[in-house]
Amino acid sequence: MRSTILNLEASKIRDVANAGLGRDDVLAFWFGESDEATPDIVRQAAIESLRLGETFYAHNLGLHELRHGIANHMTQKHPGPNGLGVAADRVAVTAGGVNALMLAVQALVDAEDDVLVITPVWPNLVAQPRIMGANLRTLALQAVGGRWQLDLDELLAAILPQTRLLILNAPNNPTGWTLGQVEQEAILRRCRETGTWILADEVYEALYFAPTENACAPSFLDVADPNDRLVVVHSFSKSHLMTGWRLGWLVMPPAMTQAMGKLIEFNTSCCPVFAQRAGVVALQHASEITPRVVSHLKICRDTLVGALQEVPGLELSMPLGGMYAFFRWPGHDNGVIMAKQLVAQAGLGLAPGEAFGPEAAGWLRWCFASKEPQRLLSGVDRLKSWMKL
Amino acid sequence: MRSTILNLEASKIRDVANAGLGRDDVLAFWFGESDEATPDIVRQAAIESLRLGETFYAHNLGLHELRHGIANHMTQKHPGPNGLGVAADRVAVTAGGVNALMLAVQALVDAEDDVLVITPVWPNLVAQPRIMGANLRTLALQAVGGRWQLDLDELLAAILPQTRLLILNAPNNPTGWTLGQVEQEAILRRCRETGTWILADEVYEALYFAPTENACAPSFLDVADPNDRLVVVHSFSKSHLMTGWRLGWLVMPPAMTQAMGKLIEFNTSCCPVFAQRAGVVALQHASEITPRVVSHLKICRDTLVGALQEVPGLELSMPLGGMYAFFRWPGHDNGVIMAKQLVAQAGLGLAPGEAFGPEAAGWLRWCFASKEPQRLLSGVDRLKSWMKL
Repeated sequence: MRSTILNLEASKIRDVANAGLGRDDVLAFWFGESDEATPDIVRQAAIESLRLGETFYAHNLGLHELRHGIANHMTQKHPGPNGLGVAADRVAVTAGGVNALMLAVQALVDAEDDVLVITPVWPNLVAQPRIMGANLRTLALQAVGGRWQLDLDELLAAILPQTRLLILNAPNNPTGWTLGQVEQEAILRRCRETGTWILADEVYEALYFAPTENACAPSFLDVADPNDRLVVVHSFSKSHLMTGWRLGWLVMPPAMTQAMGKLIEFNTSCCPVFAQRAGVVALQHASEITPRVVSHLKICRDTLVGALQEVPGLELSMPLGGMYAFFRWPGHDNGVIMAKQLVAQAGLGLAPGEAFGPEAAGWLRWCFASKEPQRLLSGVDRLKSWMKL
Repeated sequence: MRSTILNLEASKIRDVANAGLGRDDVLAFWFGESDEATPDIVRQAAIESLRLGETFYAHNLGLHELRHGIANHMTQKHPGPNGLGVAADRVAVTAGGVNALMLAVQALVDAEDDVLVITPVWPNLVAQPRIMGANLRTLALQAVGGRWQLDLDELLAAILPQTRLLILNAPNNPTGWTLGQVEQEAILRRCRETGTWILADEVYEALYFAPTENACAPSFLDVADPNDRLVVVHSFSKSHLMTGWRLGWLVMPPAMTQAMGKLIEFNTSCCPVFAQRAGVVALQHASEITPRVVSHLKICRDTLVGALQEVPGLELSMPLGGMYAFFRWPGHDNGVIMAKQLVAQAGLGLAPGEAFGPEAAGWLRWCFASKEPQRLLSGVDRLKSWMKL
């Protein structure tokens, strides 16, 4: 096998979670997934499609109806600087957000290309360019008093003429860091100068807790033109409680779409029609499903982060977006050891910061997507006991 | 975008099929897909899973139950030279056969690696190593009197010490060429000498029409040891009428499995649980579903190939495996032009040989997986009229 693949880091989240396998006394908050099943109306759409026998190959880029549904959904949220919105010919349906990211990296990154990733971040974003043989550089956010921040000047200086691709995820997993429109404009301006592509993982855009007009976090689609070198990745997983469906999409410049169709053919061929039918219905009901998810998540966030902020010695901030509390206990600098001890000694399952980048060593990620907010408080009690408070 | 990706050949099958879009008077046989929906009992398993709310992430490598089901299924067919069969820890569940192939290529092929592919072949097998930046060589089968054959000595000489990967598909799409056990042994022996990996696309193994003990074509699993550098790819698509589900698997050496789990995480994360439940039931009923599919396909094959062999001037042989008739009309050397004319002038949809390799220029592929064999004969009538016979 390729040494590149052998050297890909195994998930430190799985590493910790494996230590708790088979223990039903563990309160697990390690994975980025709600514990609520997909809404019934969405499941029914897939069931009906299966009943009808829609079990054949579909178009590489997705069902016409779903691509147009996505385009309308995105246009409502992001009319863009010229009001052009997102045309359906810029949309491809993919086997989840992670697959959309991988396809974009395949489309853009040659071996030895210079690729810049902002970290801490979901480890898949770092692994994908590595699989393609890229020369990877990371630029770390800085934690100041529990809040992770971007040094914009440092980022702009790190985007070089030879930089092929900038990869970022905001609202960010795990830190909750979000980008503002002024920052996005500055980054786009710099990338236009250098010819650098931007791959923006915006799957958490709808899980945004600040009051806004379009009910979502700032997006690169708000500042870019359709032909900019920008790929924006989305997923039904978080905003529609559809993690297990493996259904997502990407928005790209129209000139890229034909090649993306080929890449989908060579990676997965297409997404199942019955899953796409569920996606169509999920978007039709987005104005019921997502606000309910978000308002419940906000209660979860306020409950968990509020309680953690009252724990003496912990350092964290209230995240504006996403579904994670990210915190540390100063003086305790090994998150993997802490997370393993928390599983073994306290029955509390968290993800170690090290999974997301070395600069997050000693931090812990807590997914607060929980049907029962009381479950989060029980977790905080376990944490406090373990801390001997 | 990468020039590698821009230069990937667009499907010549799609090119021809697009010319017939929106015409319901075309008898279409261009795609490799039965026109029969997935058996009801398999669909019901997915429906039940959806009803139960199994809409969460699954293990990267697949459900325990499905991996063991696959391992048992493969062991029954392929106990192997030492009777060890296929252990479940050598199995990964993937988003279709094509995804299994792409994952294997990602695991094995660095940019600039020497990769050898036997053609004519399904174009995805050539595109995947190109995406990874490989130096690709092809070795062409030779057509003798309508039958495509491998020059074994030529192949053995073409496998060099620097050859990283040999990719082959037998029973072959489009030619129906199959490999015999003696040939497989010789290829394996040579690849052991050179350290070359074998990626064997055996998705058509069960669609085999010669009488055999295990009801399938010879497999590299019959001659290899578990630790050989061999990846064998399978799919539920053809043998279980499940094209649209995007569900397949690969069998690999046990030492590769952990890394494969990482690659799946970074490509698609996992396959939907409800689709995997359908896969479990499909295997439980394999002894009913697949023989029915195969005996019907045999009728289709005999009907179509028998009729084509009676058409004066056509050159073709009876394929031993697969679901395609592959033929030519000597003196007519441009399959793309012929296929486009057949759509436009005769309402007959076939795939041009050029889609599968330059050595197949002028050939035409006809998928005979049709619920109604009479439909195949109507197609032959259209062909004959067009040939002015």
